[in-house]
Formats: sequence, structure tokens, C-alpha cells
Amino acid sequence: MKPLVSIIMGSTSDLPVMKKAADFLESMEIPFEMLALSAHRTPHEVEEFATNAASRGVKVIIAAAGMAAALPGVIAALTQLPVIGVPLSATLEGKDALLSIVQMPPGIPVATVTINGGMNAAVLAVRMLSLCDADIAARQDLYRTSLREKIVKANAELAEIKYRFKTN
Amino acid sequence: MKPLVSIIMGSTSDLPVMKKAADFLESMEIPFEMLALSAHRTPHEVEEFATNAASRGVKVIIAAAGMAAALPGVIAALTQLPVIGVPLSATLEGKDALLSIVQMPPGIPVATVTINGGMNAAVLAVRMLSLCDADIAARQDLYRTSLREKIVKANAELAEIKYRFKTN
Amino acid sequence: MKPLVSIIMGSTSDLPVMKKAADFLESMEIPFEMLALSAHRTPHEVEEFATNAASRGVKVIIAAAGMAAALPGVIAALTQLPVIGVPLSATLEGKDALLSIVQMPPGIPVATVTINGGMNAAVLAVRMLSLCDADIAARQDLYRTSLREKIVKANAELAEIKYRFKTN
Amino acid sequence: MKPLVSIIMGSTSDLPVMKKAADFLESMEIPFEMLALSAHRTPHEVEEFATNAASRGVKVIIAAAGMAAALPGVIAALTQLPVIGVPLSATLEGKDALLSIVQMPPGIPVATVTINGGMNAAVLAVRMLSLCDADIAARQDLYRTSLREKIVKANAELAEIKYRFKTN
Amino acid sequence: MKPLVSIIMGSTSDLPVMKKAADFLESMEIPFEMLALSAHRTPHEVEEFATNAASRGVKVIIAAAGMAAALPGVIAALTQLPVIGVPLSATLEGKDALLSIVQMPPGIPVATVTINGGMNAAVLAVRMLSLCDADIAARQDLYRTSLREKIVKANAELAEIKYRFKTN
Amino acid sequence: MKPLVSIIMGSTSDLPVMKKAADFLESMEIPFEMLALSAHRTPHEVEEFATNAASRGVKVIIAAAGMAAALPGVIAALTQLPVIGVPLSATLEGKDALLSIVQMPPGIPVATVTINGGMNAAVLAVRMLSLCDADIAARQDLYRTSLREKIVKANAELAEIKYRFKTN
Amino acid sequence: MKPLVSIIMGSTSDLPVMKKAADFLESMEIPFEMLALSAHRTPHEVEEFATNAASRGVKVIIAAAGMAAALPGVIAALTQLPVIGVPLSATLEGKDALLSIVQMPPGIPVATVTINGGMNAAVLAVRMLSLCDADIAARQDLYRTSLREKIVKANAELAEIKYRFKTN
Amino acid sequence: MKPLVSIIMGSTSDLPVMKKAADFLESMEIPFEMLALSAHRTPHEVEEFATNAASRGVKVIIAAAGMAAALPGVIAALTQLPVIGVPLSATLEGKDALLSIVQMPPGIPVATVTINGGMNAAVLAVRMLSLCDADIAARQDLYRTSLREKIVKANAELAEIKYRFKTN
Repeated sequence: MKPLVSIIMGSTSDLPVMKKAADFLESMEIPFEMLALSAHRTPHEVEEFATNAASRGVKVIIAAAGMAAALPGVIAALTQLPVIGVPLSATLEGKDALLSIVQMPPGIPVATVTINGGMNAAVLAVRMLSLCDADIAARQDLYRTSLREKIVKANAELAEIKYRFKTN
Repeated sequence: MKPLVSIIMGSTSDLPVMKKAADFLESMEIPFEMLALSAHRTPHEVEEFATNAASRGVKVIIAAAGMAAALPGVIAALTQLPVIGVPLSATLEGKDALLSIVQMPPGIPVATVTINGGMNAAVLAVRMLSLCDADIAARQDLYRTSLREKIVKANAELAEIKYRFKTN
Repeated sequence: MKPLVSIIMGSTSDLPVMKKAADFLESMEIPFEMLALSAHRTPHEVEEFATNAASRGVKVIIAAAGMAAALPGVIAALTQLPVIGVPLSATLEGKDALLSIVQMPPGIPVATVTINGGMNAAVLAVRMLSLCDADIAARQDLYRTSLREKIVKANAELAEIKYRFKTN
Repeated sequence: MKPLVSIIMGSTSDLPVMKKAADFLESMEIPFEMLALSAHRTPHEVEEFATNAASRGVKVIIAAAGMAAALPGVIAALTQLPVIGVPLSATLEGKDALLSIVQMPPGIPVATVTINGGMNAAVLAVRMLSLCDADIAARQDLYRTSLREKIVKANAELAEIKYRFKTN
Repeated sequence: MKPLVSIIMGSTSDLPVMKKAADFLESMEIPFEMLALSAHRTPHEVEEFATNAASRGVKVIIAAAGMAAALPGVIAALTQLPVIGVPLSATLEGKDALLSIVQMPPGIPVATVTINGGMNAAVLAVRMLSLCDADIAARQDLYRTSLREKIVKANAELAEIKYRFKTN
Repeated sequence: MKPLVSIIMGSTSDLPVMKKAADFLESMEIPFEMLALSAHRTPHEVEEFATNAASRGVKVIIAAAGMAAALPGVIAALTQLPVIGVPLSATLEGKDALLSIVQMPPGIPVATVTINGGMNAAVLAVRMLSLCDADIAARQDLYRTSLREKIVKANAELAEIKYRFKTN
Repeated sequence: MKPLVSIIMGSTSDLPVMKKAADFLESMEIPFEMLALSAHRTPHEVEEFATNAASRGVKVIIAAAGMAAALPGVIAALTQLPVIGVPLSATLEGKDALLSIVQMPPGIPVATVTINGGMNAAVLAVRMLSLCDADIAARQDLYRTSLREKIVKANAELAEIKYRFKTN
Repeated sequence: MKPLVSIIMGSTSDLPVMKKAADFLESMEIPFEMLALSAHRTPHEVEEFATNAASRGVKVIIAAAGMAAALPGVIAALTQLPVIGVPLSATLEGKDALLSIVQMPPGIPVATVTINGGMNAAVLAVRMLSLCDADIAARQDLYRTSLREKIVKANAELAEIKYRFKTN
């Protein structure tokens, strides 16, 4: 089984955020790999990974990084695959990582998601994979519909709250 | 010919930014459409567009918006397609639009690109389309390689600059 | 008894902030409802709610949202009623929500209040309702006068603090 | 004819922004007044204005201010009427005015609109006035519907743009 | 004994910051008063206080406020005395209070000090009082000289730290 | 004639802002001097100036600086006089200078005024000088009263504007 | 043994950050000193230190400071040595210190590193010292190579995580 | 003649800023080279440059970049030389570039200078080169002393300005 999605992070301390990406891909039955890479500590390994990802069958790369978050952009420069960047709030509430990831120059985009948005990165990856795989698309549609359940439940809880002038 | 990419904007005043997206798709020979929609002025048309885009054959949606930029997120909520958001610098240098687009809640991602990054939105769309179309992938690879030409030219110009202690 | 005010939130985790709105409306004896809605998870329910609120007798809508806080603006686009937006500090201290709510384009205003300002949203709603209801106006005026009591009490406490060179 | 809306500003240099408020009220046939007041230069006049506005028949107050924009909050403290605050971008792109206006303490809200949002202030005022005046409500509804015309026109213009791969 | 300095705050919850001002004035043997006032909750009391402070013998006013911190500016508008503003970090790390206090329009300055800078407000007040009182000036000079003691002590502690390659 | 106020700046390019300080002191008939000093270019001259200012009869020091604006704080560390800091918007809209000037550590305050607030610096200096000089206090009071004239004039201009539904 | 690097801080409360600098220099066998100095509390000692550092054999100065962080720039003005500035997050997440340190005027640079980046300051100092010392250069190179070990270890840990669809 | 300093930029549009670096190195008679490189457009050339710079005799690298400014950090990861980063204000006033450059992770520092600080980058490079070259050190010292001339000239100009109450 070859991975369709690569989840890249710089440290296992990023796992609380990126585990949500793994969990979602698992629930969608999409093969993935999890690797540690750093644009600043292992530049050669980054280059090797990014240059070969497509030929290894990887379709989408998710890269999480904090602070001066160069990793997603450097990978995007070395592959033709879509790269999804997850800004991590290691410092400055993640604003440094957000700007370091999203403000890419013309020609080398990074698909940036919510700060600490490991979940959204995986959902976006699945939306991309759905473009050429009807099975994945069907599973994703089920998931999207399920999102309203959380609101249905919240409404039930709000209905339980009692006030004299509350009418629902 | 059916569009593979929809370019959505709120006003023709967004054209200087979004024309770059159109130009790039044209150069990649990818059918696209350009539409004006507003989450706040034409909410029903937005819903109709987003709900039907996939069945019309659209694969990727690019949505540009400024200020309280709700459009990309609202579209993402109504379609299973990947949605690319372009923050426009109408006010506050585009920081309001950037945060309004990128900070999506879990489950409904928007692939956010550079502020005023019409070009990057199109390149990202093409990277996604390349996942299931080898011809597009080949054209995209040519493009990516061509990016270094600008640097080659810049080096030639820098080489022309004369100083007594400049050695190249 | 029909609600005059709708309090909308995206999750029961918003209750610590929005309970203050409910408590104040209760104290002013104003009928209200509390509902969960999400511009991104239940867009159709949002549309139905906003389109029908006025005909159901609702006069003012209070909508709380965090992050890419599209909810208040999307509701404002679909109703003629005044919409009060409460930015929640879910991330980035609420700055993302503040900008996503307040920076509405011309023609579709959202009356934005303090970050996490559930209380102020309710007081503002009551100020609006007072425009056509003398009883509510009288109750509101009593409330406004009572605000100085907190300062009177603070002065009493400050007077208790002893210093050799403190003269009051 | 007595004014229903007071438009307050600190200087005639604010007119380019606040004229949009006046124009909209004129188009809605709503009597209004325009006054210059300053929380820092004419505090006594501010107090007199705010204390008496309701008894003079004013229903809604629109107050524009830049920098350390105390005016809307100070007025709100002295009246039971709803007060709409317009942050002006005199300095720091209007971020100082936005925070000075929106971050009101519990109990004294200011309904804050878009930076330089003179237009939105007037539309919000009309939404409030519509609560007790069916004629105004009807005119407002017509206006709200008319907002989509700008998008219709934009679509017509976008349809005119020719590309080989553009399909609409 | 009449107060030379008035310390104004909006709530006893500001005491942890403002007690440092009181402590310093006490140590300098300068008579002061501590009062609670709010530009938004007790506007009339603010006006009475500010209008009469000079004739009561007060020389300098220290006003602390958080959020939309109008208090120092409103007092400055109503007195000829120098007013020192202390931004409190009630929300947004105090950035809202800082901008609301410092960005005063031409003609009505507020002498703004460090966020949560109760201590610095008192020291600044003493610097002002020293202009016409040689005794206070002498005590202040002693204080200023004493500031270096903290550094002397820090150096002693740093000298205690042992490393093989540490040379001091 | 000895100067009571020193106006310090780092460059004659600061004159458009600081001339307003000079003009105001001139109008108040207060002797002043204007000097160029830089904490980074002429540290020894800064030390000499700050150490001797009080003994030369200077009562208040106004120091303007942009960027990493160390000048006001360094002067405050070397004198017992009150120091007023004027942040200049040389870069980053003056936010760097504002934070560099206002965020002084405990014990060494700088009285910070509006960004580019040369005028407010001079008015604040006069408020301080008024503490021990009744003549200056009287002139300052006249000035403060005159501030309302600008608003009176603005009201006259606003009264001239004609609308069918404008009532004043 | 004379120190090659001076580590300067304003308080022993800065030790948790600056101990990392000392630890790294120790591991590189580079003689260093640790001193407490303050641009605002001990300006004369700062001048003496900075003026004499080069003649005492110091090659690089590391200066840490928070808030209105004038220390690194003031030292840089008084020495010909390279000065490395470490912004401390005492307030405002260190943004005030970052801007106070990095935004130096032309001619007096401070080599600014990561907020709270005591470690990076020491590594940068060692890179500078390596320019004229082959032994230090060799040790530094070993260190740089060792950085990838943390990533190797992280990969080992990620490989341990089991999912049904995880492929590595 | 081999270059001691490499000045790297991403585009000839950066020349207005980086020419100041070249001019200063020329005035100090220090051999340098000017090259165009991009972490995102020419990643392989960046790697080759950074890996070989030291062995080619380069001592210090100056790298300028705007937006998601990965270049200085990526170079720092691939060389043992000190790397000076110049944030360019291409977008967002340079705040994105500043954070992308300065917020490097532990172990790989970039010596960050003023936004658009081409001049300061060169002065910092010369301070580093002075560590092992007495001739360069002597020239640098002359330059540092000359900085006060600008202030002397400014004082002469300020002395020319006439006011009735100006005393110098």
C-alpha cells in the first residue's frame, strides 16, 4: 500500500495538531505516511523527499511548521504536487508562521489553512483526492453532511436551558 | 467546452488581481469561467452556484474577496470541491481579508494563498488538476521549470553593475 | 410568547459569553430564543432562519462567532432586521473574529460590539427595542442609571485603603 | 420636520466619509441633522447634545471619530438611544479608532461598523428605524434587493472579457 | 492635608497595577487620593472631578483604564492639569487601551506610560511635582540613583554562576 | 533668556512634525531651544545634554524619534526632569517608535504622546510648566478654551450643507 | 582566560532564556562573561562597558532586553564590535522588544535573532568567531551537522505510531 | 580578487535597497559579489551557492527577501558562515518578511537587520570582518565616528531657525 498523502512536521511536539490530520485520513481510508523533516535542520532530506514524492505515488503533501515556517514553501518549490501548509502557534500565536507560509511569491503557491488546522489540512487533501477518485468523493460527501450533526446536538442542548422569557 | 475552474470575484474592481489567474489558466489551456458573486449581496446566487458547480463539471473554485471576506468560506460550505481563497487588500492591507478567509473552523477548509495572489491561486488550481490529468501536469512542470529564468535574467543584470570592488 | 430577540451561536462552548446576553434579556423581561447555527456547517438552516426571522416576529438578531466569523454577515445579508455581531476570542485573541465581523462591505452592516461582549450585545438590542416600546425604554433607563452603583461601591472600597499620605 | 438621525463628526474633514451616510438617509427620505462635536474639544456640548437627543425626537445617533475615538462611547454613556460608531482611518489605517470605539465596557455598547463605513452606519440606522416604521421598512427592503444589481452588472462586464479558454 | 496627585481607576480590579503608584507616592511622602471614576458609567462625576481638581489643589492626575480607555482623555479635556494615562491589559494585551489613550487629537495630550505601568505613572508625576518643589526633587533624585542597585545585585548573582569557560 | 523647554530631534527631516511644538511654545511665550541629538549617532552628546539640562534651567525635555526610538528613554535615564516622547512614523506607521518609547521599564517613565504629535508634546510641556507659573497657566487656559472654536466653525460649515431631509 | 563573548542582560529573571547562550558557548569551549547592565538604570556602566569591550579582548556582544529594549542599540552605538540583540517576551509577546531592537537607523546595526532566542544568539556569535578561528569553526560544523539528529529521532518516533492506513 | 561578502537578492527590483549595501562595501574597499537567487524559484542554485560559499572564500552572506522570506534561513541552514537577513517591504510594510527571517528555530540563526536595511546589513558585515582584519577595523572606526557629522550639520540648520522665544 503506497501513501497518497504525506504528513510532514518538524518535531513530535507538533503531533497534538497533526494527529487530527492522521485521524481524518484514517477515517477516510486514505493511505498516508508521517515524516519529520526540517527546512533548516535537514535541508538535503527535504530536497530528496520533495523531488521524489510524486514519483513515489504521493498525491498531496501536508506540511506543518511554526515560527519562520519555511518548510511548506521550500517543498512547494521542489515538487509539482499541491502542498498544504499548516501554521503552528509555537510563538506569536502563530502569526509569524501564518505569514511565513501564506505570503508565497507568484508561481509557487502553498494552500494555507487555519492556524493549528491539522484537521482542515486533511479535509482539504481529501477534497483534492476526490477530484480523481469517486469512492473518496463519496466518503467525503458523507463527512461534509455529518458536520451539521454537531449543530443539531448544540440546538438540543440550548433547548434544555430554562429562562422565564426564553421561548424555545 | 465546459469550465474546469471557476474564478469568482465580488466586483470588476478585483480584475487587476484576478486577471492574472485568468491569464495563467489561458496559458495552461484550461477552460475556465469568470463570475461575479457576493456572499453579502447575492447570497442565493452563491448558494446556487456552489451547490451546482461540481455537477456542472467544475473541478476547482477560486474565490477572491476583501474586507470581511466571507465568500470563499461560504462556497466551501456548500460544495465538495476544493476552494481556493484569494485575500484582497481592499482595506487594512488585506489583513482583514486574510484572517476572514484562512481561519476557517474544522471541517471546512479554504486553501488560502498570498494576499492579492491571483496568480498563485491559478497555479494552485493547476497543481490540483494535474492530479488526474497527465497533459496538464506536463504543462505545469514546464511552467515550474521556467520560473528560474527570471532569476537567470536578474543575474545577468546584476553582472552588468560595475563597482571597483565588485568581483562578479 | 414570541421571541423579540434571537441569540445565535455556533456551539455550546460559546455559552459562557452568550449566557450574559440571555441573563440581561431575562432581567429586562424581553422574550428571546437561543439557537445554534453555523454559516459553514448548516448554511441552509442559516438561510431559512434569516429569511423567516422578521415574519416570525423577531426584531433583533444577536450572532456570536469566532475565527473566520462569517455568521453575522451572512445573516445580515438575508434579513432586513438589525444584526448585532459578537466577536469571540476562540483564536488570535478574537482579532480575526473582530475583523471578519466588522469589516462588512457597503450596504450590509453588522452592529459589532466588544470582543466576547455578550452583555453589550443584549444591551444594544434593548436600546433598539426601546425605540418602539416605552416600557422597555423605561426598564433600560433604570438599568443605565444602575451602572454607576459599581463605581460607588469601588469608591467605598478605595476609601478603606489606608496610607499615611493618602488623603481620602 | 424633526431629525430622526443625528450624524456627528469632529471635523469637516470627515465629510467625504460621512456624506455617504447623509446621502443614504436622504434617499430613504429620513430626516436627519449633521453636527460637529468633539469629546475632547467640546465636552460640555457633547453632554448637552447626548442628554437631550432623545427628548428632541432623535432615534439613532451616528458618531464618527478617528484616533483615540472617545466620542461614540461618551455619547452612548449619556443617552438611552442606540449609538452607531464609525471608525475613521485618520491614523494607523483606523485600527486605533476601531479599537477605541468597539472595545466598550459591559453595559454601554456602541454599534461599531466598518472602518470609514459612513454608508453602513446609515443603513444600520435605517434597519433600526424600520423596527417601528413600516414605510421605512419597505423602502429599506427595496434598497436591500437593489444591492444585487451591482453584481448583475459586474457579471455582464465579466462576460464581455474574451479568452480562448474562457467559457462564459 | 490636601492631595497633590489623584489616582483614578475604573474598578478595584485595577488595584494590583495602581497600588504600585500609591506605594511610590507614599514612599516619596506625597499626599494623594484614590478614586473610582468611569467615563462611561459615571460621566457626570468625571466632569465634576476634572473641572474642580485644580481648584482643590491637585497638581497631577493619574488615570488608569482598559479596553476603549476614554477616561484619561476625557479628564484631560476638562482640566488644565497634566494627565497621565496608564493603559491596562484587560483585553488584547492592552493594545486597545494603549491606542485609546495615546492617540489623542492635537491640543489635548495625555502623558501615556507603559502598559500596566502604575509605577511609572507615579514616578512621572513626581518628576512633574519636582519642577516646583526642591524637597520632592531631592527625594526623587535619591530614588533615581537607587535604581542601579537592582543591577548591582543582579551582577552579584550572575557572578555566582559557575561554568568552566565563564570568566567572571 | 534661558530655555525652559528643550526640543530634541534626530534629523531636520523631523522638522515638519516638531515645528508644531516650536510654534506652540512661541505662541505661549515660553523660551525654548531646538537641538539635534541621536542616541545612536551621538551618545556622548546625549549624555552631556541630559546630565546638564536641569542645571541649565531646562524644565521639560521633548524628544522625538522614529524606528528603534531609544532617544527619549535614554535621556529620561540621565535626568530628573520630565521627558516627553514623540513617536515618529518613519517606518511601520510609527508603531515601532510608539512601542520603543512607551514601553519603558519601571522607574524611568517617558510621557508618550500621539504618533507625530509634536503639537501635543508642546501642550503637555506647557501643562507641566503651568504647575509653578501662574502666567503660563493663564495663557494655557485661554488656549484650551479656544479649542472649541474649530468645532464652532465646523458646525457653521455643516449648517451650510443642503439636503431635502436635512433639518439643520 | 579572557572572555571572547559578553552576555549582557538586564535582570536575573532573563536567565532562563540567556542560560541557553551560556550553555552553548560552554559546549563550544569559548570563554565568555555574563553581566547585568541596563540602558535605563545604569547608563554610565553601559557606556563604560561598551567603550572598553573591544580593548578587553571581547569579540562579540550578546545583549538581551525586553519592552522598550534600548540596550543592544545603545551598546552598538558605543563599540565597533558586532552586537547581537535578543528580544525578550516580557510584554506584548516580545513584539515591542523585537521592533525596539531590529529597527535601528542606518549605520548602527544590531544583529537581531529570534524572540527569546538565547540559543540562536550564541550560535550566531560562534559563526562570527569562526571567521578567524579554525578550531571554533570545526566545532561549529560538528554542531551544525548534529542538528539533524533531532529529526532522525522524531522520524523514529513517528514510525512507531500505528494506523491501519499509515504506510510507514 | 575574491569576494569576502555575497549580496544575494531575489530580483533586480530589490536593487534600490541593496545598492546601499554595495555602496558601503565599496567605500570600505571590501570585495563583494552580487547575485540573484530564490529559495522558491532556484532551490538547487541556492543549495549550490550556500554549500560552496565558505570554500570560495566568502566570509559573510547578506540575503534580502520579501514576503514569505525563506531565503536567508535556507542559506543559513546550508553554510557555517554568518548570514545577515534584510527584510524587504514588498507587502504588509515588511512585517511578513521580518517575521519570516527573524523567527528562526534554535540552532540556525539569521542576523536580522532593519526592514529595508541594506545599509545596516553591510555595516554589520564589516563589523564581522573587522574581527580578523585590523585594516577593515580601522576603516570601520572612521566610518562610525563620521556618523555624528550628520547630527552636527542638523544642529547647524536648527540654529538657523528663528523664533522670538527660541534661545539657540
